[in-house]
Amino acid sequence: MTHRYKAIVEYDGTGFAGWQQQRHQAQPTVQEAVEVALLRYCGDITQVHAAGRTDAGVHATGQVIHFDLKRPREPYEIQSAVNHHVRPYSIVLREVKAVASDFHARFNAKQRHYHYHILNRTAPPALMAGYVWHVPVPLDPIKMHEAVQALVGKHDFSSFRSAHCSAQSAIRTLDIVTVSRSTEEHERIIIHIAARSFLHNQVRIIVGHLYQAGRGIYKAQDIEAILAARDRTKGAFTAPAHGLYLTKVVYDI
Amino acid sequence: MTHRYKAIVEYDGTGFAGWQQQRHQAQPTVQEAVEVALLRYCGDITQVHAAGRTDAGVHATGQVIHFDLKRPREPYEIQSAVNHHVRPYSIVLREVKAVASDFHARFNAKQRHYHYHILNRTAPPALMAGYVWHVPVPLDPIKMHEAVQALVGKHDFSSFRSAHCSAQSAIRTLDIVTVSRSTEEHERIIIHIAARSFLHNQVRIIVGHLYQAGRGIYKAQDIEAILAARDRTKGAFTAPAHGLYLTKVVYDI
Repeated sequence: MTHRYKAIVEYDGTGFAGWQQQRHQAQPTVQEAVEVALLRYCGDITQVHAAGRTDAGVHATGQVIHFDLKRPREPYEIQSAVNHHVRPYSIVLREVKAVASDFHARFNAKQRHYHYHILNRTAPPALMAGYVWHVPVPLDPIKMHEAVQALVGKHDFSSFRSAHCSAQSAIRTLDIVTVSRSTEEHERIIIHIAARSFLHNQVRIIVGHLYQAGRGIYKAQDIEAILAARDRTKGAFTAPAHGLYLTKVVYDI
Repeated sequence: MTHRYKAIVEYDGTGFAGWQQQRHQAQPTVQEAVEVALLRYCGDITQVHAAGRTDAGVHATGQVIHFDLKRPREPYEIQSAVNHHVRPYSIVLREVKAVASDFHARFNAKQRHYHYHILNRTAPPALMAGYVWHVPVPLDPIKMHEAVQALVGKHDFSSFRSAHCSAQSAIRTLDIVTVSRSTEEHERIIIHIAARSFLHNQVRIIVGHLYQAGRGIYKAQDIEAILAARDRTKGAFTAPAHGLYLTKVVYDI
């Protein structure tokens, strides 16, 4: 019998090949780093499962994982030990708790929340380089917000998934897409997107379309037409990974 | 005849010995880095003057500088060239403009604004390490805000300056001190402090007192008593440099 734990994880995606290997890459993965830290801590060889398999360079403040240990342990001890043994990687367990053995971080997730940060000013960032997408041309967050509402609800998102996406169906239900200027940092535009699940690169492709909407190139009807085309080649580019954060995963239990 | 330019500067204070050398240190200074970039750009050996001589590790989003060039140049060209030649340092000129030859970034400044960021949660930061002060014990921002209002106005701040402070008078007028929780990131506490000028380490010493107020150790009357003592040894420690940002400098002209 094993003992299952759930943890909320924050990480700096810079320098990682993502949560798990997708193609042959020399960089470490977040999954490997956490598994090695658990091995160092208690000697258990365990597989860590995540709610969201974030791409290379994508950050997380609210990734959720689960893993099994051979013996029961104090959650706070697991948290401290992993945070110690995972060094020098920039990964932190924010919270650990014991869960039922049928809890699954990926399959039980009801909603995933992502935030995307754009630094919208002429000058490149000196602070926050690697943590925001720098867009030097002026973007209008109100136009962005309005144009993208066409994507909310249940749709075939074939136009909004990577060529490498392996999901059988492209039908997804987008719960929330909002675009607003940060109240605390006027040059920063924050995009919030939530859904039960996403196709590969779906959030970053939506952000690519928001860029075109922010420049006044796409209106709501253009985004509707791209959605209706069900063809990835009809739309905008994919926004870079380093502006994207997995911020929250919601469970029933 | 020379031509004077004013620039707004952002920098990541990590790895710098501060704006200028204060003691013997092996690290570069922000001042040197900008002077070398100007030399590379146009061959002029010029001294760069800053509104705030930030300490080692302190960041800036709104530092203001001025410098003289031998020939008139397009402000946008200066901005692009310095931002190019200053690499690999994390320094960016956000804005450059031509100013009158009697403008002085330091002596003409009417008000300096600093922000201090505290990450108030148990787990250390994986993202933003080096850009926030991590305080694992719970702090109450309302208590912090209330206790510190005693410092607003014109006072002798002898209890709130470093032993290394070389200012002749310790009289300063604090215009603003506010403490609030970030509306966009609940775990972050943001302190905003503004005055015409500050004593050495004054902002970081005030933040050290705010830490004690946030834990419920200092009340308003304790901070008043420390102020009245005019003795640095009566109060709290100095908060670390890496949570501090020089965010704005205000001029009449």
